[in-house]
Amino acid sequence: MTTGIATTADHLRAALDGPWGEIREQARLQLADDKFAGDPYLDYKAARARVLEQMRLISTMGYAERGFRRENGGTSEPGAAVTGLEMLAYADLSLWVKAGVQWGLFGGAVENLGTERHREYIKRLISLDLLGCFAMTESGHGSDVANLETTATYDPDTQEFVIHSPTPSARKDYIGGAAEHARMAAVFAQLVTQGESRGVHCLLVPIRDENGADLPGVTTFDDGLKGGLPGVDNGRIVFDQVRIPRENLLNRYADVEPDGTYTSEIENPSRRFFTTLGTLVRGRVSVGGAAAAGARVALSIAIRYALKRRQFSDPDSGQETVLLDYRSHQRRLLPLVAKSYALAFAQNDLVRRMHLVQTGQDLNPSSQRALEKRAAGLKVAQTRHATRAIQECREACGGAGYLTENRLVTLKADTDVFTTFEGDNVVLTQLVAKELLTAYSDEVRDLDALGWVKFAATMVGDEVRKVTGVRQLIQRLRDSSSDSVDEGDIARRAVQLQLFADREEYLVRTAGHRLRARAEDTTPFEAFNNAQDHILAAGTAHIDRLILEAFIEGIEDIQDQEARELAETVCDLYVYTTLEENRDWYIMHRFMSVERAKAVRRGVNELVDRLRPDALTLVEGMGVPESMLRAAMLDDASVFERG
Amino acid sequence: MTTGIATTADHLRAALDGPWGEIREQARLQLADDKFAGDPYLDYKAARARVLEQMRLISTMGYAERGFRRENGGTSEPGAAVTGLEMLAYADLSLWVKAGVQWGLFGGAVENLGTERHREYIKRLISLDLLGCFAMTESGHGSDVANLETTATYDPDTQEFVIHSPTPSARKDYIGGAAEHARMAAVFAQLVTQGESRGVHCLLVPIRDENGADLPGVTTFDDGLKGGLPGVDNGRIVFDQVRIPRENLLNRYADVEPDGTYTSEIENPSRRFFTTLGTLVRGRVSVGGAAAAGARVALSIAIRYALKRRQFSDPDSGQETVLLDYRSHQRRLLPLVAKSYALAFAQNDLVRRMHLVQTGQDLNPSSQRALEKRAAGLKVAQTRHATRAIQECREACGGAGYLTENRLVTLKADTDVFTTFEGDNVVLTQLVAKELLTAYSDEVRDLDALGWVKFAATMVGDEVRKVTGVRQLIQRLRDSSSDSVDEGDIARRAVQLQLFADREEYLVRTAGHRLRARAEDTTPFEAFNNAQDHILAAGTAHIDRLILEAFIEGIEDIQDQEARELAETVCDLYVYTTLEENRDWYIMHRFMSVERAKAVRRGVNELVDRLRPDALTLVEGMGVPESMLRAAMLDDASVFERG
Repeated sequence: MTTGIATTADHLRAALDGPWGEIREQARLQLADDKFAGDPYLDYKAARARVLEQMRLISTMGYAERGFRRENGGTSEPGAAVTGLEMLAYADLSLWVKAGVQWGLFGGAVENLGTERHREYIKRLISLDLLGCFAMTESGHGSDVANLETTATYDPDTQEFVIHSPTPSARKDYIGGAAEHARMAAVFAQLVTQGESRGVHCLLVPIRDENGADLPGVTTFDDGLKGGLPGVDNGRIVFDQVRIPRENLLNRYADVEPDGTYTSEIENPSRRFFTTLGTLVRGRVSVGGAAAAGARVALSIAIRYALKRRQFSDPDSGQETVLLDYRSHQRRLLPLVAKSYALAFAQNDLVRRMHLVQTGQDLNPSSQRALEKRAAGLKVAQTRHATRAIQECREACGGAGYLTENRLVTLKADTDVFTTFEGDNVVLTQLVAKELLTAYSDEVRDLDALGWVKFAATMVGDEVRKVTGVRQLIQRLRDSSSDSVDEGDIARRAVQLQLFADREEYLVRTAGHRLRARAEDTTPFEAFNNAQDHILAAGTAHIDRLILEAFIEGIEDIQDQEARELAETVCDLYVYTTLEENRDWYIMHRFMSVERAKAVRRGVNELVDRLRPDALTLVEGMGVPESMLRAAMLDDASVFERG
Repeated sequence: MTTGIATTADHLRAALDGPWGEIREQARLQLADDKFAGDPYLDYKAARARVLEQMRLISTMGYAERGFRRENGGTSEPGAAVTGLEMLAYADLSLWVKAGVQWGLFGGAVENLGTERHREYIKRLISLDLLGCFAMTESGHGSDVANLETTATYDPDTQEFVIHSPTPSARKDYIGGAAEHARMAAVFAQLVTQGESRGVHCLLVPIRDENGADLPGVTTFDDGLKGGLPGVDNGRIVFDQVRIPRENLLNRYADVEPDGTYTSEIENPSRRFFTTLGTLVRGRVSVGGAAAAGARVALSIAIRYALKRRQFSDPDSGQETVLLDYRSHQRRLLPLVAKSYALAFAQNDLVRRMHLVQTGQDLNPSSQRALEKRAAGLKVAQTRHATRAIQECREACGGAGYLTENRLVTLKADTDVFTTFEGDNVVLTQLVAKELLTAYSDEVRDLDALGWVKFAATMVGDEVRKVTGVRQLIQRLRDSSSDSVDEGDIARRAVQLQLFADREEYLVRTAGHRLRARAEDTTPFEAFNNAQDHILAAGTAHIDRLILEAFIEGIEDIQDQEARELAETVCDLYVYTTLEENRDWYIMHRFMSVERAKAVRRGVNELVDRLRPDALTLVEGMGVPESMLRAAMLDDASVFERG
């Protein structure tokens, strides 16, 4: 990338780097140093200390400031912030999580839920003078945040809130930073004032003194070892009547007067809750991005290995065959590369949208909500992809893949929880489907857990999805599909788009029908539960379409002809693989003939064949610098060379 | 199990325990002690020391002797040996691997490839007076064992073999025991005598002195941390002209006279090689069994959790819903339980067959070869199942699932390499398919890597599979299917069997056609590679059928009516899930109408509904004692109780 003559890989990388490409380029140089890499030989206490040291270095390099508004000491560049921090994932995922907890979750809560009176904290948390944690999840409630049990009861006599864990299950759990480093917690609790419960609010609660000892009433515990992320000090917090000043309520959307009077500009408690959560969307955006980054590292390692590693002689040539020349190896890895490309474009698109909303450049009132849905959907797709791709990479590298020195097992262990945090993937897929099934109606947010089921069941099928909106390029492509899909050439982008859209529309519509058919004679839970697999399929189909549209739009920005053609082929492979994975559905619902389904399978084979010679270019295009791969085997003659 | 009144779960457990049930019962009592559990907080050096201590305890408890013949100091019970050692997997997989390396691989090589003159070693290795390792895999050659590079050159002047690593890639790698504990290695090397190479043979090579220092010419290295199995000391060995006495050749199938004359009762070198490998089949049998045991532990944890953990209120009842009441949760876990049942029966059947062959009770010359194919196929199915099931269990337990104290991540990390060792799953699936495609012809074994492709392509379609043989019960069931499958009731076992068999037969036959069509105008490699996905599908279909047949036969042995009916429903779920996973294939090849494919999906939903009330019984039937689950959350009120 420094030669001056741009290669095809350079063009691809520039396209995948997206709108904050220069941030990525800078990070590639800054973060390649070994001091930012993880050291798997440290015990977890030492690993935590190392990550904290790394954080102190990062805090001087501008990564944190981008995420905060100017008036709070930042530079107001949310898109750049998410992009820059994502690059930490190439170095070490513990570092990425730790940074995400401190600046994204804790900092994000103070910035977005707090007001002027909390500004002082922001400068201190940017510089790490104040280490914080984000105490939302409890042992008893993770997915169901609205029913957290921790209480914050206002005492007008002292003008304090009393933070308390009334039950064993109210214990805060899995909280990054709670085990060791955090001095202050952004605690989500049921706010009670004047004898009335006002729903979940966030308050700043000091938890440790400057020597690291628990403050009175606070008891912290260490979650200890986890599947991965050894550098993150996850822990538990129990509160026993801990008093904090009234001013520690993060009062952007609601406040309590000194006398205990509760005020809020948002009258509806449910809407207030969702508004609160909505400001924290950056967490989901970031988790998806980091998961996809982890998958790119793993695929870069596995494909570089498959390009050098030989096994079994070809009796004709006498030469041993390179792994990536095997059809099965091409089929297990190249479609994952194609999906990584698709997701990279989708993530860039998501970050851009987030940036526009969060900097006030997009003031469309529906944009925030659409952003939340998209972030949830892409978080699911990217974390699911990471889990699958990294596993496949490990297996594709055989015994070498199992050695920690080759990094794949660390990537697997570290990313494994990403399908869970910032929202369990099943729950998030349901959330996406719920938005589709209820056409984003605001009424739905005010209903309790399953109330939306009844609402969805009352809707006419045609209302569903009409607000989702389609961008111009995509609309043009769709319009150009004059053939009926049945006869259309499946290699044409317009026909592909139609197939994706058909699946989504059919699934959303029929899920609605199914809810409706049941709603009259059963309870909402039974109606929902009976259709749950259908609902989840609808959510997934929607996500698949969004990703394809982002891929198509991303290709539009590639100027170089050769790079563009290669990207088109990669896009085809993403499409054919997705169609192949769902071909049972397409055939069963008469969107695809058996002959066409067979053509899809052949198409995947042809596409991996066609991409095989460009495998290294595709890897370089993914943009993980060789210096950051850190897989010992890639430089080990014993693995590759022949005597 | 001690109450005297047998419950349904007791009956199921007895059935799943199989022919060596009393060994399992004894092990449940013996191995429940904490001293046999892993301690994830030890660093890997300490973990290795702990496992070695555990091995010393185990060595006094009779587990090792069962695997060796009486004349060698054992008790000649191979079935009991594999079953007993499998139970170690409930305690800790590092311990299981370490025991498998010492007694199964190293001990198995000495016992099966050695002769009287090596008998002295066996007593010593049973008692752990002699610690050994199994040095087959090299950095350059894992799957392709026939092309190992290490040489053992005979020097008649001194009557010694010279063991040497001629290239960097000849380095022995991933060898359990090589990093620290092993004093002697069973080394697989190309034997050279009188200037001629005689193919791969196994020789005993002392590698360390009694203080643990490398012997002259031997250099060992530590593979260091791996994805899991911290208690196993995997390492590398490089040989520089290491001399060992002529007698150290394990000479059961071939010998070298003092003057260097090579003799063997098996003239054909390829057949000699496969005979050598065939005696080591117990390794594959054991890996599959241990993987399935790991999956049972994980499923026992995840389902017990799902039966207690509640999330989200049902607006009608006001109560929070238990996870296992959600359709999606039932669908993600219960089919995996069904598959665990299927595999447990299949494993029992496999171990029984192995026992009959290895104790000389089955002298049918084709049995050994059929055993090898079956062992390879079930190793693939069980390790693949473990990888998938344990991952699903981790995710199904959310954040709690990610904490090491809840064991799922340790099970995942430890079993992850099982898809690789004792044969990569892709390579093994091909081996199964190759046997099917060439109708087990002996000629094939003499051909080089891809020579079988040409051979397979010359065969007439009908010869394929005719020797596989079908057992009586299954034949009776198949005969009873008088309806054509097209009209048959898919709930009938006979029809299900037919659907499984049809898929296998069609895939094997058409894979043969495809090879044939290509063989004339391309090279063997191209013909093979072009059909590789097809070949792999044929192998998988065969394995699916074997598992179903074993399930059906296993149910036959359940006397208790209630237990039997429950097992029948579980079998249905295994069948419907497998059909659902392959419904695209069934529709595309006209074995299933679209209507029937839809009925299959509905059937899965109905079956998980029907099994839901028996979930705990099914878990207890899997036979992992609660005392061996060791998941802290299962006893943690904070996770389950409501305030």
